[in-house]
Amino acid sequence: MQKPLVGIVMGSDSDLSVMSGCAKMLEAFDVPYEMLISSAHRSPEKTLAYARTAASRGIEILIAGAGKAAHLGGVIASETPLPVIGIPMKTSDLGGVDSLYSMVQMPGGIPVATVTIGAAGAKNAAILAVQMLGIKYPELRRKMINYKEKMKQDILEKNERLQSIGYEKYLEEMNQ
Amino acid sequence: MQKPLVGIVMGSDSDLSVMSGCAKMLEAFDVPYEMLISSAHRSPEKTLAYARTAASRGIEILIAGAGKAAHLGGVIASETPLPVIGIPMKTSDLGGVDSLYSMVQMPGGIPVATVTIGAAGAKNAAILAVQMLGIKYPELRRKMINYKEKMKQDILEKNERLQSIGYEKYLEEMNQ
Amino acid sequence: MQKPLVGIVMGSDSDLSVMSGCAKMLEAFDVPYEMLISSAHRSPEKTLAYARTAASRGIEILIAGAGKAAHLGGVIASETPLPVIGIPMKTSDLGGVDSLYSMVQMPGGIPVATVTIGAAGAKNAAILAVQMLGIKYPELRRKMINYKEKMKQDILEKNERLQSIGYEKYLEEMNQ
Amino acid sequence: MQKPLVGIVMGSDSDLSVMSGCAKMLEAFDVPYEMLISSAHRSPEKTLAYARTAASRGIEILIAGAGKAAHLGGVIASETPLPVIGIPMKTSDLGGVDSLYSMVQMPGGIPVATVTIGAAGAKNAAILAVQMLGIKYPELRRKMINYKEKMKQDILEKNERLQSIGYEKYLEEMNQ
Amino acid sequence: MQKPLVGIVMGSDSDLSVMSGCAKMLEAFDVPYEMLISSAHRSPEKTLAYARTAASRGIEILIAGAGKAAHLGGVIASETPLPVIGIPMKTSDLGGVDSLYSMVQMPGGIPVATVTIGAAGAKNAAILAVQMLGIKYPELRRKMINYKEKMKQDILEKNERLQSIGYEKYLEEMNQ
Amino acid sequence: MQKPLVGIVMGSDSDLSVMSGCAKMLEAFDVPYEMLISSAHRSPEKTLAYARTAASRGIEILIAGAGKAAHLGGVIASETPLPVIGIPMKTSDLGGVDSLYSMVQMPGGIPVATVTIGAAGAKNAAILAVQMLGIKYPELRRKMINYKEKMKQDILEKNERLQSIGYEKYLEEMNQ
Amino acid sequence: MQKPLVGIVMGSDSDLSVMSGCAKMLEAFDVPYEMLISSAHRSPEKTLAYARTAASRGIEILIAGAGKAAHLGGVIASETPLPVIGIPMKTSDLGGVDSLYSMVQMPGGIPVATVTIGAAGAKNAAILAVQMLGIKYPELRRKMINYKEKMKQDILEKNERLQSIGYEKYLEEMNQ
Amino acid sequence: MQKPLVGIVMGSDSDLSVMSGCAKMLEAFDVPYEMLISSAHRSPEKTLAYARTAASRGIEILIAGAGKAAHLGGVIASETPLPVIGIPMKTSDLGGVDSLYSMVQMPGGIPVATVTIGAAGAKNAAILAVQMLGIKYPELRRKMINYKEKMKQDILEKNERLQSIGYEKYLEEMNQ
Repeated sequence: MQKPLVGIVMGSDSDLSVMSGCAKMLEAFDVPYEMLISSAHRSPEKTLAYARTAASRGIEILIAGAGKAAHLGGVIASETPLPVIGIPMKTSDLGGVDSLYSMVQMPGGIPVATVTIGAAGAKNAAILAVQMLGIKYPELRRKMINYKEKMKQDILEKNERLQSIGYEKYLEEMNQ
Repeated sequence: MQKPLVGIVMGSDSDLSVMSGCAKMLEAFDVPYEMLISSAHRSPEKTLAYARTAASRGIEILIAGAGKAAHLGGVIASETPLPVIGIPMKTSDLGGVDSLYSMVQMPGGIPVATVTIGAAGAKNAAILAVQMLGIKYPELRRKMINYKEKMKQDILEKNERLQSIGYEKYLEEMNQ
Repeated sequence: MQKPLVGIVMGSDSDLSVMSGCAKMLEAFDVPYEMLISSAHRSPEKTLAYARTAASRGIEILIAGAGKAAHLGGVIASETPLPVIGIPMKTSDLGGVDSLYSMVQMPGGIPVATVTIGAAGAKNAAILAVQMLGIKYPELRRKMINYKEKMKQDILEKNERLQSIGYEKYLEEMNQ
Repeated sequence: MQKPLVGIVMGSDSDLSVMSGCAKMLEAFDVPYEMLISSAHRSPEKTLAYARTAASRGIEILIAGAGKAAHLGGVIASETPLPVIGIPMKTSDLGGVDSLYSMVQMPGGIPVATVTIGAAGAKNAAILAVQMLGIKYPELRRKMINYKEKMKQDILEKNERLQSIGYEKYLEEMNQ
Repeated sequence: MQKPLVGIVMGSDSDLSVMSGCAKMLEAFDVPYEMLISSAHRSPEKTLAYARTAASRGIEILIAGAGKAAHLGGVIASETPLPVIGIPMKTSDLGGVDSLYSMVQMPGGIPVATVTIGAAGAKNAAILAVQMLGIKYPELRRKMINYKEKMKQDILEKNERLQSIGYEKYLEEMNQ
Repeated sequence: MQKPLVGIVMGSDSDLSVMSGCAKMLEAFDVPYEMLISSAHRSPEKTLAYARTAASRGIEILIAGAGKAAHLGGVIASETPLPVIGIPMKTSDLGGVDSLYSMVQMPGGIPVATVTIGAAGAKNAAILAVQMLGIKYPELRRKMINYKEKMKQDILEKNERLQSIGYEKYLEEMNQ
Repeated sequence: MQKPLVGIVMGSDSDLSVMSGCAKMLEAFDVPYEMLISSAHRSPEKTLAYARTAASRGIEILIAGAGKAAHLGGVIASETPLPVIGIPMKTSDLGGVDSLYSMVQMPGGIPVATVTIGAAGAKNAAILAVQMLGIKYPELRRKMINYKEKMKQDILEKNERLQSIGYEKYLEEMNQ
Repeated sequence: MQKPLVGIVMGSDSDLSVMSGCAKMLEAFDVPYEMLISSAHRSPEKTLAYARTAASRGIEILIAGAGKAAHLGGVIASETPLPVIGIPMKTSDLGGVDSLYSMVQMPGGIPVATVTIGAAGAKNAAILAVQMLGIKYPELRRKMINYKEKMKQDILEKNERLQSIGYEKYLEEMNQ
């Protein structure tokens, strides 16, 4: 097993079903990672110790997913020179705008690289991490180019299918 | 000099002109306090150490003022059994709704007692602290009753003035 | 039966299922409380009489839960020197941002200590009340320290489980 | 001097410059009114006593102007069978959306007839009051018809001026 | 059959299930009304003709319910000296904040008396109409006093039930 | 003088300084237009008559600028088969989000082609009108292509200037 | 088969069920169209090539439907002199306000004619396209007049039905 | 002169005074950069060509600053395997929430690493870029550790100053 390059932290196991999308995307790029449940508020010392030691253990990027008053990204960022990516969780009352503001509006000096709210964000955090790692690892740069190419092929094929069968049949197929 | 009962923390000295309103109101009630600049993000260890030791040093209430992704209240609350009051600072872009959500939307288990955005909040944080201390100190309970009585007298007098001189003269006097 | 220290008021019995979480948390700390349905708008005299007499009957903290134009906290706060905690109810149209603004944006002089929207807020209101009571009752301070310790243990155990079985099995267990 | 038909209440004399627009518009319709500073939070008993006795003293409509957690309209409405009109004040942080939600989102059973935020609302509250009084007083119905006719003439004349001199000259005249 | 005093207009029959709550409340007060589907956008002439002739046909109050860019209230208000009450419909995307702004933010000169979003608003519009009619009809003023008294009794009884059986049994009864 | 192809309507002369930007841009394309002050609420009959007769008088596009509860676009759209472009005015309290929602959220069947809030929107409404007219008038299509080419040249030149003198000098030049 | 006059582009096939409403409405007006899946982000070259060549292939209007950071409309508008209509998709977290702002707030010079969020917008985009084409094709102008007439008849008939059977029966019929 | 590692792109020279803060911060870390004015909408081809060739020219990170419907970050991200950082500009009407949503809410597959709105964001984008480059360049990792240490010292010194002279003198010094 390879040494992890990315540390994924989430504030609660209720975020796990969304955050697993981040892990799966890293697996697709063969990027070794570790995944942790550690809260900025309920286990602050552990969270800070984790952030403080991540760089020296070889972690190169930290990803934090949290909801509501989502301090996890900022708290981790305060204790590491590594780039920190934040995923704002969707919330049942405010839709995730609370999580988003709590992550993205960091004061000057301590950025959190914030991505899309929710599941799309979990996926995007992994992709962003791969892009960052691509600065150092040419192999990952190449894989990212291929990934983007594949995304393009997928949508071109979907469009071809739409052109060939029309929207009514296409919708039927989607609903099956 | 009395031992401080309240600890006021702010994340930046740019918050000081607002936060001084909190200090002034505590002075009006003769509540001894200490005031600190310590950031959740720029001096996290100091902030946490302060929070961790506050109770044992005799502090009974902590007040945190911060803006934008305002994590200060939550970070302090994570490390103390004391009640923590949060004042969301007004921000120039989002008006303070970012600070508000970052403070009030704390996850279950770690409350931050959030008050009004900005200067009214700084004043209200001090009053709330006095009300909490009134649970233990009957003298402060009495002062709070008097304070409310005085607020009532003030507004009754303003109303009497309005009745006696009419709104046009009253506005003139206000604008002088 | 002990004399109640906390008064929980809600504006409607439709808030009871959320507000019962507040009662349950107080029970977990063995804090005696009373619980009341009394509306700022439908039974104003009763609400005010309750607020006015609470302190003299030995109540030390008042908790108000209400939704939409949530005036209950402010109305109670106007008539008592006690600290008042407000829980903004989630609403079906605006998600609870209406309740939140109606509670937290109190004018200078009359704070309402506002907590998270909805069920997390009901829990947090009780915890905040225990923290306030801890100023006077060392036993509650100790219990709060234990509570936070237990929260920490819970999350550490969850993390250990995650490390030992991996996220896929963990998600399976959660969904069972 | 005629007996007042409308009671204008504001929560603070800081609202007076806006609320005076309401008074002036009632004067333009020769509707006798009284104007009061009385806060839902700082002088609750007086506010409630005022609301409770308004109908028996011959008042037919109550107008409340307040900002932030603007409870004044709802508190007054709780104690009177009269229609209550609410004017949400503009706020420096949230623009008045806090005042608006606190006024308009009243629970079923206790309406507050909410108008535009700020100065336009103060004017509109008076016009709405005249429209309500027009139900009983045909003279006010007639005046309202004339008022609307005059508004129409004003805008038609403005348009004619625009047509005759062109927009550049018109803007010059406006800026003089 | 009595001549209608209130005209209820809705922009679409998709609003009828909400707006029927308004009709039912007027029936409870024995206020004769008429109810109309007429859109500001799809049948503008009819809507305006209705508004223009309402006063002369003896209608004393107009109630408009509409969603999204909810112009119905404003369009009706432009053509009548009668008071116009607006009910903003809840919307599936923006929760009704679009309807609310489109109704309440009327320019100076043409108020729409806006009430709560959705079903509570439909009820409140009827109550507000009764309060307005109470200016002229003492019988309706009396009924409104009784209605408020009944609301108070209901909530007092609910509270007594809560006191006697406790919150757990109360919740059980509610869920049956 | 050519017959106007575009009708610009604004609800108040207070919108004229913004709306004149729309006129100026049409002049730059030599598109003949007429400009009108006519309110949906204060002069509804005139506004509707204007909308109803615009097509038969040779107008091909209508542009409506209005603020707050901005019904002008929708009211005009209800009475014409022509495309209607809406410009939401910035408002001092809600920033123009009220105007935006009131314009863009039209119900199915009656679109208003909504553009950017404020001055950028006034300019964009004119450009959109030229694009629509370009469907019929090849000369305007050509002018639009040139306009876009010129925009591109402008920004390329600005970039060249930046490259040649550096950002500090560039900022100095801008501030002169 | 006629040459298409309208190009409908969507960023993802997940938008197809909403966007098909746009196609259906164009079919109802016998307006030939083409429909494309092409993303601003996943297939940018294809999207831009499509936009760049649309005018020369005889397309007269482009319609773009996209959600979240909905750049599709703006990206297409950057490369064509044709009018571009944007449909903001509803989103599960922010309700579509993200899509709306990303579409409507275009900088001066590059408008996107934005319509209602979601399904009503898809329908309205088609109607707006027909209105634009009506500038050139008198037959479509006539059809639009008929369409509006039919909308009016529909609502008048619904109203007649309501008058004849009452709201209770009407609701019953709707629920069947 | 070193070969640039970071490309800073802004959509308009009106963003330059904010974006220069980004350049200055990169200079403080001795990170070579290039800075470009190129719009997603006004010079799309140039923007895309720039994005497409950046990696092969040795650029490792792209930073995009834009306001309103801020597509620049997403458009660039569509054409590069490099990480793209987005700075949402503050806007005069919506405060920058439009820019923020347009940047952060990117669909799954194409992330934009979004930072704080406005000037704090410009600074944070540079810091985030240095953190990313620190993955590859140990010297930058070390500088980042020093930078954070310096931030900590600064705030500790400010706090010491506050402790030694008190808040009133401190405020006086700030205002000089």
